[in-house]
Amino acid sequence: MSLVRVHNFSVSLDGYGTGEGQSLDAPFGHAADRLHRWFFGTRAFRRMHGDEGGEAGVDDAMARAWGDGIGAEIMGRNKFGPQRGPWEDHEWQGWWGPEPPFHTPVFVLTHHPRPRLEMAGGTTFHFLAAEPEEALRRARAAAGGLDVRIGGGPSTVRAFLAADLIDHLHVVVVPVVLGRGVPLWDGLEGLEQRFRTESVTTPSGVTHLTFTRRT
Amino acid sequence: MSLVRVHNFSVSLDGYGTGEGQSLDAPFGHAADRLHRWFFGTRAFRRMHGDEGGEAGVDDAMARAWGDGIGAEIMGRNKFGPQRGPWEDHEWQGWWGPEPPFHTPVFVLTHHPRPRLEMAGGTTFHFLAAEPEEALRRARAAAGGLDVRIGGGPSTVRAFLAADLIDHLHVVVVPVVLGRGVPLWDGLEGLEQRFRTESVTTPSGVTHLTFTRRT
Repeated sequence: MSLVRVHNFSVSLDGYGTGEGQSLDAPFGHAADRLHRWFFGTRAFRRMHGDEGGEAGVDDAMARAWGDGIGAEIMGRNKFGPQRGPWEDHEWQGWWGPEPPFHTPVFVLTHHPRPRLEMAGGTTFHFLAAEPEEALRRARAAAGGLDVRIGGGPSTVRAFLAADLIDHLHVVVVPVVLGRGVPLWDGLEGLEQRFRTESVTTPSGVTHLTFTRRT
Repeated sequence: MSLVRVHNFSVSLDGYGTGEGQSLDAPFGHAADRLHRWFFGTRAFRRMHGDEGGEAGVDDAMARAWGDGIGAEIMGRNKFGPQRGPWEDHEWQGWWGPEPPFHTPVFVLTHHPRPRLEMAGGTTFHFLAAEPEEALRRARAAAGGLDVRIGGGPSTVRAFLAADLIDHLHVVVVPVVLGRGVPLWDGLEGLEQRFRTESVTTPSGVTHLTFTRRT
């Protein structure tokens, strides 16, 4: 059975998944790197970007589950890039350079059409105007029987949680108060009742929470 | 040096310290017991209410720091009782019965005057219209050189944090999404910069976070 999974999704104590004022220079807005410092130090992050070294502890173990058995990703347009509204041109090819770390089809949810974009290393971006159910149907068809990852940002994860389409959710609670930004939990009252939860803290100070759908 | 401390303060993943719709039958509103289940099972909670038994693990160790070295408490009126506005009568004497677990002076912040209330076991409720600084001055004078605890609810803790009067904050993040209620973190952007933080999860599923003021 193909599962729908979320990995390495950081939130602040006040529940923001990204800061306010996202831009080319500030992909996470005023949050800067505060939500993701735990991740940058891991071997998994380094390897994802072609580097060596990094820590091999619990943060790393949690982080590296990100890619195993994934056949496609769905992401919101705000994760793909800082533009809003119709595409001015097609020069922007995402934050990740010529060889993005996904190595699968990636479905970018946007109301503004754009031709698909084939990158090196097996990543192909498809641009899709669709509700969560339809987007998932398309991603599953492309995933070859493997799992589908919902890649973020917060509004996209929230929409898939609200539609009860997520089987496995890995959230990283970071002990910072952002004060403003894009919330993850809004409209999800009682979410925990649909899942079994586990949690572990690590020396980096974050808490890894896993939500596994009750069967 | 007398410190100002907060203990055993539970919040949901979306940052609510209590639910919506607080009343005589529902002191935590629609949150019911979801924020405090971890606490009810501890030896500390049982002993606080004159009972025996309970768990003696990490939840208990964290919970029992609540009383050590405390000479006075400050609480919001909404923690004292469900009434709002002027006191209709003086029959309500708090949630805690004839012998409350505080055993110290307790300053209840309210704009509506009321004579002080002496209970069995050393608890005296004083009703006080004051801003945080003035309330703390009064509580310190009554605490005989011991520490002052800020007892809640969320609005009261938040006001003392905003005024930068807290030295030690113990927050318990409970993996539930309440969706609505009284928020703890609003207006406290960047709070973590004033504190060193530590965290630990326990088998009850909660995460204990401690904030210790940087010196």
